[in-house]
Amino acid sequence: MSGDLQFDSNKRLRHLLSIDGLDQKTILEILDTAETFISVGERQIRKVPLLRGKTVVNLFFEASTRTRTTFEIAAKRLSADVINFNIGASSTNKGETLLDTINNLEAMHTDLFIVRHIDAGAAYLVAKHAPSHVRIINAGDGRHAHPTQALLDAYTMRQYGKDFKKIKVAIVGDIMHSRVARSLIHILNILGVPDVRVIAPKTLLPVAIERLGAHPYFDMYEGLEGVDVIVMLRIQRERMQGALIPSEQEYFNLYGLTEEKLVVAQDDAIVMHPGPMNRGLEIDSSVADSDRATILPQVSNGIAVRMAVMALIMGGNQKNKGAEN
Amino acid sequence: MSGDLQFDSNKRLRHLLSIDGLDQKTILEILDTAETFISVGERQIRKVPLLRGKTVVNLFFEASTRTRTTFEIAAKRLSADVINFNIGASSTNKGETLLDTINNLEAMHTDLFIVRHIDAGAAYLVAKHAPSHVRIINAGDGRHAHPTQALLDAYTMRQYGKDFKKIKVAIVGDIMHSRVARSLIHILNILGVPDVRVIAPKTLLPVAIERLGAHPYFDMYEGLEGVDVIVMLRIQRERMQGALIPSEQEYFNLYGLTEEKLVVAQDDAIVMHPGPMNRGLEIDSSVADSDRATILPQVSNGIAVRMAVMALIMGGNQKNKGAEN
Amino acid sequence: MSGDLQFDSNKRLRHLLSIDGLDQKTILEILDTAETFISVGERQIRKVPLLRGKTVVNLFFEASTRTRTTFEIAAKRLSADVINFNIGASSTNKGETLLDTINNLEAMHTDLFIVRHIDAGAAYLVAKHAPSHVRIINAGDGRHAHPTQALLDAYTMRQYGKDFKKIKVAIVGDIMHSRVARSLIHILNILGVPDVRVIAPKTLLPVAIERLGAHPYFDMYEGLEGVDVIVMLRIQRERMQGALIPSEQEYFNLYGLTEEKLVVAQDDAIVMHPGPMNRGLEIDSSVADSDRATILPQVSNGIAVRMAVMALIMGGNQKNKGAEN
Repeated sequence: MSGDLQFDSNKRLRHLLSIDGLDQKTILEILDTAETFISVGERQIRKVPLLRGKTVVNLFFEASTRTRTTFEIAAKRLSADVINFNIGASSTNKGETLLDTINNLEAMHTDLFIVRHIDAGAAYLVAKHAPSHVRIINAGDGRHAHPTQALLDAYTMRQYGKDFKKIKVAIVGDIMHSRVARSLIHILNILGVPDVRVIAPKTLLPVAIERLGAHPYFDMYEGLEGVDVIVMLRIQRERMQGALIPSEQEYFNLYGLTEEKLVVAQDDAIVMHPGPMNRGLEIDSSVADSDRATILPQVSNGIAVRMAVMALIMGGNQKNKGAEN
Repeated sequence: MSGDLQFDSNKRLRHLLSIDGLDQKTILEILDTAETFISVGERQIRKVPLLRGKTVVNLFFEASTRTRTTFEIAAKRLSADVINFNIGASSTNKGETLLDTINNLEAMHTDLFIVRHIDAGAAYLVAKHAPSHVRIINAGDGRHAHPTQALLDAYTMRQYGKDFKKIKVAIVGDIMHSRVARSLIHILNILGVPDVRVIAPKTLLPVAIERLGAHPYFDMYEGLEGVDVIVMLRIQRERMQGALIPSEQEYFNLYGLTEEKLVVAQDDAIVMHPGPMNRGLEIDSSVADSDRATILPQVSNGIAVRMAVMALIMGGNQKNKGAEN
Repeated sequence: MSGDLQFDSNKRLRHLLSIDGLDQKTILEILDTAETFISVGERQIRKVPLLRGKTVVNLFFEASTRTRTTFEIAAKRLSADVINFNIGASSTNKGETLLDTINNLEAMHTDLFIVRHIDAGAAYLVAKHAPSHVRIINAGDGRHAHPTQALLDAYTMRQYGKDFKKIKVAIVGDIMHSRVARSLIHILNILGVPDVRVIAPKTLLPVAIERLGAHPYFDMYEGLEGVDVIVMLRIQRERMQGALIPSEQEYFNLYGLTEEKLVVAQDDAIVMHPGPMNRGLEIDSSVADSDRATILPQVSNGIAVRMAVMALIMGGNQKNKGAEN
């Protein structure tokens, strides 16, 4: 649905709202561009002037210091000015509508909005009403999408030598409430991964999961059998209070990733997690701290992937910029 | 009262504390300077190096993410470093006096303070004790003044072709509690506007409003008759709880700006609002979203006007700077 | 204990965790470097490009807007990018461990962490697990240490012509709970100050204070006799509620610094305070505002000292940087 909005008339990426609607070519272009930024992170001087004079607004309606920080670092490495707009303290709770808030910020001649919102579709709504010079990146909207997370996960798989056309990937945990899972299933399908699995208790699995492009498993040993990549999701402890999860101990016994369960996967299988981890709940510390875990490389890759997305969607403006310097 | 403090011995603007005390020449110099910065906002690279190496401190004792953001963007476009000093989390609630807090920040060799405070006179107090190298801009103090808002409103009127010497302006709403209204009445009088009106229920009108330089009206149709500019003020919903306003519905019926009431104004009358708007309370959405509304241009102009004020009051330092480069 | 961690194999300063473990040469190198940065604060353009392209993370687990601001200003004057990571709003309260949070931030290719924590040893813990390219500065950990405060205090004494080898210094107030006192006693001993005194009621004095290197006094007139430097500590009003301090009035009568008590000190004795002050509790306003008080110079010096520490511990990287430009 957001596919049309995401591209301009020349089929260039304009906003990043969801993985759904992207094609393989665009995704690979982002991953390849990210690769060129990995070296920037390792250089002595980490800045490139691509977004100099541009204003990036971190528009977070849902608090997430960590995700905000990744976008802030990525934008600053591209030499942009960054404004952190904490919406809790602002005028939306003074009765102003979301669109009025956005229109106001756009009127300040800002260029790029990183939008995080508790409601699915918020970033889409913002993009739909944005003037032509403004770009939007969805940094997570409700249970809907978290496209930069899916991109950095795909980047990490490729970095660890996994060939999308051949691998088996298992996503484990609270699939139902997870925008990370939704975006990841999309990207793996677009990239041609032949076997995408989700492993969860029935209470945490959406009904039409097959139609989304993933095979459901209810047992870890069955689901992890022969996989090349395991993506552990964060369990919200709040779910324990409801009837969705029996108890922390029982959840860990059944679905927590331990070295014992890991044995059934491929010998070179990698273990991913979007963070922050609940050690001893969805993942055992011995696994989280092992060589198989790619959790910290995911974070590093996240900066490069976000730089790549920002650089690509601001690319149209870049060209004009050349003339002015 | 703050007039003396606002100028240095060479009659150059030194602090911006209130519109009261400024002369027409100074105001027009600010508006003309702002005009040169409008193009900066539309350029590909939005930075000018006027305040490079300077430190601007947003000293907000009263939370206002939106106003802080406008000053932060303006300062960054001038290449200043910006420090957001959230006073709620700081040492004034550790028993330190306001002046000790300010003295401390000044001792860090900061250059410009943007001060917002719930008490009238706070920015004046800070300016009175500031060392000679420090500049102060009042970003709103209690019910007293909000000079940059008045300046951007005047800028917007001129931009829309209104001739200050000829126009009728109506300010509508909670005049009593509004620093925006106070500063706006002052600037319109200084600029020679022949007919300044305020429209409000009696409970929201200060007694000596005539002496301030505005004619009171209690009826919208009478007050809007033939005006060229309408400035709608934000209604604080808290006033509803008290006896000051009967009910939202009744307030909207009597004082909310609708297309029906707008008919009595000039055909090319513009509708202004400082934001954030309460749609359906002080203004109808059909008016707010019409061609007549200048609400978003006001926001854009606000960046340029704040850049102009910063550049002008830091001007003395600018000269010296040339020598050093 | 943190001594080994603080230096690299070439005996260069690597982290600043506590004064304990530093030698006189290193401390004097920091003070001398700070002196070169004092002029930067007084220049028209206050930036030097030493940390350009570096990312400094203010990692404050304990709120302190003022201290954070001093580090933020210092880092920006060195041209670093600064990320303020407010840990209250972040994932540690989502159950993530401190080390996971740090590891994540480090994976973002950040360079320098300014760590403030309510627990003694937190900065040490972070440094112990940091990868080789990351540097740590302790900005206060529990009652343990506040090394940059001690350095700026030493800097200020020297600036006011005090010869470390000859002076008498009295530290007055809540020695027991003060990391400032601990770090200051250390630095004065390392610098060879022959007479370091602490003055406090017995309830606010640690038992083994002599072993720490300070002589205890319980009476102000005895303790201040002939001293060259008086360092007043901030009294936490919370202590009043407990049995530690009788009442504000009684505390002020016995231990508050007044002009009357000051008479017994040297004629050119200076009065220091780390801020924020409780006027009328630990210090009389007439003393705080007198020529003897060096409270605001301490703040200015704090910026220069923090710039010096950052520049020195990042120095190893600086060398490589030259090649790249």
